[in-house]
Amino acid sequence: MNISKFGEFNLINHLMEVISKDNLDIINNLSELGYVLSVPSGDDSAVWNSLDDSHVVTVDALVDNVHFNLDYISWEQLGSKSVSVNLSDIAAMGAKPIFITINLGINNEIKVEDLTSLYLGIMNKCKIYNVAVIGGDIVKSRDFFISISAYGALKQNGVLKRSGALVNDLIAITGNIGSSYGGYKILSENIDINDKLAKDHLINSHNNPIPRVNEGLELLNLGANSAIDISDGLLDDLNKLCKSSNVGAEIHSNDLPIDSYLKIAFRDDYLDYALNGGEDYELLFTAQNDVMKKIKNNINTNITIIGKIIEKEIIILDELGNEINIDPKGWDHFK
Amino acid sequence: MNISKFGEFNLINHLMEVISKDNLDIINNLSELGYVLSVPSGDDSAVWNSLDDSHVVTVDALVDNVHFNLDYISWEQLGSKSVSVNLSDIAAMGAKPIFITINLGINNEIKVEDLTSLYLGIMNKCKIYNVAVIGGDIVKSRDFFISISAYGALKQNGVLKRSGALVNDLIAITGNIGSSYGGYKILSENIDINDKLAKDHLINSHNNPIPRVNEGLELLNLGANSAIDISDGLLDDLNKLCKSSNVGAEIHSNDLPIDSYLKIAFRDDYLDYALNGGEDYELLFTAQNDVMKKIKNNINTNITIIGKIIEKEIIILDELGNEINIDPKGWDHFK
Repeated sequence: MNISKFGEFNLINHLMEVISKDNLDIINNLSELGYVLSVPSGDDSAVWNSLDDSHVVTVDALVDNVHFNLDYISWEQLGSKSVSVNLSDIAAMGAKPIFITINLGINNEIKVEDLTSLYLGIMNKCKIYNVAVIGGDIVKSRDFFISISAYGALKQNGVLKRSGALVNDLIAITGNIGSSYGGYKILSENIDINDKLAKDHLINSHNNPIPRVNEGLELLNLGANSAIDISDGLLDDLNKLCKSSNVGAEIHSNDLPIDSYLKIAFRDDYLDYALNGGEDYELLFTAQNDVMKKIKNNINTNITIIGKIIEKEIIILDELGNEINIDPKGWDHFK
Repeated sequence: MNISKFGEFNLINHLMEVISKDNLDIINNLSELGYVLSVPSGDDSAVWNSLDDSHVVTVDALVDNVHFNLDYISWEQLGSKSVSVNLSDIAAMGAKPIFITINLGINNEIKVEDLTSLYLGIMNKCKIYNVAVIGGDIVKSRDFFISISAYGALKQNGVLKRSGALVNDLIAITGNIGSSYGGYKILSENIDINDKLAKDHLINSHNNPIPRVNEGLELLNLGANSAIDISDGLLDDLNKLCKSSNVGAEIHSNDLPIDSYLKIAFRDDYLDYALNGGEDYELLFTAQNDVMKKIKNNINTNITIIGKIIEKEIIILDELGNEINIDPKGWDHFK
């Protein structure tokens, strides 16, 4: 169905209706946890009550043909991914995500069915992390875009900042890196990969990243000193963390948890992809020795120590301890 | 200067730097009021602490050639207006706006100087209402867009909802209506208005609307029953308020506080513009008789009673008490 048959107001209502049953369940769950939505979507603003005194907010937009291509990702996957990239930013603070608002820019080529799929994808991801949709706005735009704001809460004191890294902290990451960029390469350059398992795995890593929400909560609980999520590439994000903390880092390239399917599919380039690829949405964090031990023992997700914080500069060492020369590139859609 | 010379990360830093002095003053003011920004812009998320237990959020996007036209509005005015339309949604809840985040979609035709002006306009409005910029994201997009999320706090219990109107409530609005649409008509259709004062006033009403922040706070304090801001046109927004409250309304068209310059400039159409124009950003609210008296006595802004809440339907009466037949049109960018 063409969207022009719906009015602006009716379209939002229709999409909220699509997710209403699941959303209401989540709102009720959150209410029991102490996050009470006192004015839901549909008024001038949404209002919630909570007894927590720390509030976390992040915003991230994805634009058609810049951040995604609808030839390579389904509407449903796009909805899920949009939620994940925002929850990842909340996770990187060690906070609990509770609510999101959705801002869509849509054009007349888009069908109501597409937006319905998008909202179902959003809700699928929201259900996993018990996050409710509390509002949104739909506007007309030539390029389709989705901008999500996510709100989180911090129960305990303290927060995981980029600026908390200290000299001698160990540096670690959750999960594996590089696979998302491998998937991006396969999709955007139509690269033929013989190993179907590898191909599917890499594409799935790109289209369906996992935000490390529980891991972020645990990292703060257990006493990590700093964290950032890897959205722009390991080196680029490490660089941001080090700059914020006014420190340097020594990375052992041999210890990097590079995705094993990536190594199979991209035998020559996997190190570059792992260091500079981006969109991994793993957490890069630092902690003192004893805290790092506790973290490795208590978090179920694979945690890999990849180096340590030093006073100045970022140095990458190979297996023999020799310095490798790599420029941090990172994602930059303006260059 | 061309934006491609800046990286994504550097561009945000540059723009935050442009407003940093004023923004820091506001952050310090807010801190003294109990709203402490513990992690400012530049980390994965922003974090604030407050002892209030009610939190308000709204999001609104403006897209080039849909919601504005840069031939008719300066970058600085656009920045100010983007803030105003969001603060207006916070005001309509009776809440105090405290923070905003800014999400820009920009293309290569836009100059750094344009965005600097935009940010200066944003900060000009933020200074008036003591609202700090706590974060943002800049993405690439063919159509320039600005999406602002605004956060507010409610100190006291209660909130002004659309759904609170009761039968026999008096209906009133702050300020005057219709002038913004008059300005829009002049700008978009290049209409020649002899009276220069009227022309300038109408254009200014459209490009520089005033969010009724203090009025919203007072309305909640003094015991109003319901409120909505007039963004889509008086009739359309009245219709939304009545639907939410499950009531009707009787409006006396003769009592409408129609902008006097609008009457001069558009002698034949002013009633239509006042009823259906939109973008007035005045507050439409309802209150019981005695509360309305207190409101009129205590709020400095002009308050006009335009009718009362009845059981069913929206009826517009002329000066003789005869029903006028007008369809609510309202703004809808999809039709």
